Amino acid sequence: MTPEEFRRRGHELVDLIADYRAGIAKLPVRPPVRPGDIRGRLPASPPAGPEPFDDLLRDVREIILPGVTQWQHPSFFGYFPANAELSSVLGDQLSSGLGVIGLAWQSGPALTELEEVVTDWLRQMLGLSPSWSGVIQDTASTSSLVALLCARERASGFAQGRGGLQGGSAPLAVYQSAQAHSSVEKAALLAGFGRENLRSVAVDASHAMDPAALAAAIAADRARGIVPAAIVATTGTTATTALDPVAAIAEIARREGVWLHVDAAMAGSAMILPECRWMWEGVEGADSIVVNAHKWLGAVFDCSAYFVRDPEHLVRVMSTNPSYLRSGVDGEVRNYRDWGIPLGRRFRALKLWFLIREQGVEGLAKRLRRDLENARWLESTVRGGAGEGWRVLAPVPLQTVCVRHEPPDLAGEALDAHTLGWVELINASGAAYLTPAKLDGRWMARVSIGGLRTERGDVAALWERMRTAVRGGVSP
Amino acid sequence: MTPEEFRRRGHELVDLIADYRAGIAKLPVRPPVRPGDIRGRLPASPPAGPEPFDDLLRDVREIILPGVTQWQHPSFFGYFPANAELSSVLGDQLSSGLGVIGLAWQSGPALTELEEVVTDWLRQMLGLSPSWSGVIQDTASTSSLVALLCARERASGFAQGRGGLQGGSAPLAVYQSAQAHSSVEKAALLAGFGRENLRSVAVDASHAMDPAALAAAIAADRARGIVPAAIVATTGTTATTALDPVAAIAEIARREGVWLHVDAAMAGSAMILPECRWMWEGVEGADSIVVNAHKWLGAVFDCSAYFVRDPEHLVRVMSTNPSYLRSGVDGEVRNYRDWGIPLGRRFRALKLWFLIREQGVEGLAKRLRRDLENARWLESTVRGGAGEGWRVLAPVPLQTVCVRHEPPDLAGEALDAHTLGWVELINASGAAYLTPAKLDGRWMARVSIGGLRTERGDVAALWERMRTAVRGGVSP
Repeated sequence: MTPEEFRRRGHELVDLIADYRAGIAKLPVRPPVRPGDIRGRLPASPPAGPEPFDDLLRDVREIILPGVTQWQHPSFFGYFPANAELSSVLGDQLSSGLGVIGLAWQSGPALTELEEVVTDWLRQMLGLSPSWSGVIQDTASTSSLVALLCARERASGFAQGRGGLQGGSAPLAVYQSAQAHSSVEKAALLAGFGRENLRSVAVDASHAMDPAALAAAIAADRARGIVPAAIVATTGTTATTALDPVAAIAEIARREGVWLHVDAAMAGSAMILPECRWMWEGVEGADSIVVNAHKWLGAVFDCSAYFVRDPEHLVRVMSTNPSYLRSGVDGEVRNYRDWGIPLGRRFRALKLWFLIREQGVEGLAKRLRRDLENARWLESTVRGGAGEGWRVLAPVPLQTVCVRHEPPDLAGEALDAHTLGWVELINASGAAYLTPAKLDGRWMARVSIGGLRTERGDVAALWERMRTAVRGGVSP
Repeated sequence: MTPEEFRRRGHELVDLIADYRAGIAKLPVRPPVRPGDIRGRLPASPPAGPEPFDDLLRDVREIILPGVTQWQHPSFFGYFPANAELSSVLGDQLSSGLGVIGLAWQSGPALTELEEVVTDWLRQMLGLSPSWSGVIQDTASTSSLVALLCARERASGFAQGRGGLQGGSAPLAVYQSAQAHSSVEKAALLAGFGRENLRSVAVDASHAMDPAALAAAIAADRARGIVPAAIVATTGTTATTALDPVAAIAEIARREGVWLHVDAAMAGSAMILPECRWMWEGVEGADSIVVNAHKWLGAVFDCSAYFVRDPEHLVRVMSTNPSYLRSGVDGEVRNYRDWGIPLGRRFRALKLWFLIREQGVEGLAKRLRRDLENARWLESTVRGGAGEGWRVLAPVPLQTVCVRHEPPDLAGEALDAHTLGWVELINASGAAYLTPAKLDGRWMARVSIGGLRTERGDVAALWERMRTAVRGGVSP
């Protein structure tokens, strides 16, 4: 495709995206498709010759757009807000257009240095001290894996340079709360610790990690000759946005010499609000932190900010230095390939840079405060529906409200069926989207508020839909 | 940013990218910047309020564009061709604009099913049998890590469900050639095998793995009670595009019951040409393959195609199943989160789909054949310069020509200084870009041909620049 064709088709595509975003509220949030529907409409084999670009755009309109779940819809209350602010989309568009790859500083100086600058902007926005260094990873799954790998190597005296985990040393253990995200378990297994060496520490009534239980688990392991290697504390768990007590956990980590990783993938965005920073008080005692700028903050996916206290250790764990990547300036620059798993890297800093500059820190803060207020409104509204059987199941420090409708005659599996039933009524209607989750063994509905275009009216409409759905009905 | 502002600014940005690509040949390939230059021109702190978008675009023009290495320049001969075909850029632009996340089939049905379809298109294009299943990872570093993790779990009887690598079983070993990419070593260390359990098998005169040496290394390990877990064979090494004999290696892997991963990250694109498929003959005997569609083929980074023979095993190693990700269709669909490390996934299939449809398989094949011919032309031209001291150092099966200028009076470190000196003269001129590498302990120049806009004339101009540079001069 020539630059002139790109210009013409690029304008068409920008218009398509603008129209899509402008009209998104009219689309069903969850598309009415069944497994195989999309695949069945696509040719099984690639075209031998070039196809007209108009055919591509037609298929985008007719097959792709009606086949995606509308994460940017104002009534998307599922999973977490994965806001793709349109200014950030433009930054990402530029990244794709430049086609530059970060293998090393010299393969894209601006790619490296803008990432240094903009991750440091984010550090300041989050209220973190200057002792943290930032890098952009793809997701929190990867960031947490990087953290556990670094913890593994610190605890083992850098065993990867010898026999790795196969050297016959004392086993290393990892500690998380029973409410930690599934990516922590996955990371621990992939890093080779083994499920037998992963501890799920008990939580308190607010679903937050119990530091006394953590200390006891560590003591029990030490007594058995097992070496504690890493603790993962979560600021804002996935199910209920529970807040592990970071300060108390950091004190244990310090005393025991254990790596502390703080998973603030979702809730970290709220730390740009000074009034929220109590939620991760003690975070300065951690060794690593992950905050996904591609969630509530608004950078288009993928943009997971990983902050480390000791970048030299990170580089030691992650670096390779083949001749074809060496350059005369290696001692003077950051080579971000040594700050994570992939060698090649996109120019991801652009999407965060565009977002922050176009919105300003105050603009971002204002939107987050709107969402917090909407969550408090829904919380109190649901509490007001107690007479109808509504219950708020967990504290609401952030933007997620965990609810259940509990008719007096239902319990156990019948209650689960009722919950999954009314949520599915809403989801199937296309009018809004919720993802259920299990809490203490029973299903509940999570209302995750925070879409870019989600206003009070959308939350109020959801509440009416919920009230209608539990009676087996669907609101338009 | 509203959809209407996005429309206006998006058009401006498309024009900026079109102009940039149209004028790229006039830019210096390597930007004349020093470490810290870009950082020094950016504010140290984020803006409190919103900034005008015009200021952003001004900074893109004045700071970012002059600060990137021009990978899309027709005289970029460094690293590898990372072609960002403009049709693929549009597909990626759409992915960003949609802002949909692949956590599970239901979080984006089209995202999942288009990835199934388009990776299967690529499988057919590469001449692979229908027994392979494809998924898009970010990079070959990650793909190879996934392969080694799967190999680790197969060899250990799925030890991650027990004590992981810490269970005290016999150590597992990994085998690569001495010319394998640095990402293989990195993956082996991150997967916990330990450096002492990573074997670098000797290569033959063409820098390809010696199967007899591999068999001997495996036998020696078995005799010591070490269990061979994985062999990584490379089709097209980074330094010289050497071709490990996959058929012979696959026979050893089969006999020994060892996982075989084929790293065809760079050269895999050439397998869309039937006349090149002898280069990985025997690949059907492998367990996993990586082909980076974001290299020579032209999909904008990141788009690493990973093919597996046994997706059930992959899913078993990678899956987690928290309640908040479950859905009623889980048994009927692919959940690609269980096919790799990250939970969240971009809609990456779009960029590959746009590329293949806009170009057609024949269009892609034609461009690759052009590049192969250009490489053969340069090889024979350099050989014709033997009288001036030029030497081709390795076979040229693909698009990389490894050369050295060897004046009769230079050897050892003086020859290295000469090589690095003339390459740096070219790179510093901005007219073209080469990355040197070490081969058998001495520096050489790699000419990696295959940019989208790199024609015979550009290669011929490079050759004249090389001849001038070894005399200490610079061609305009």
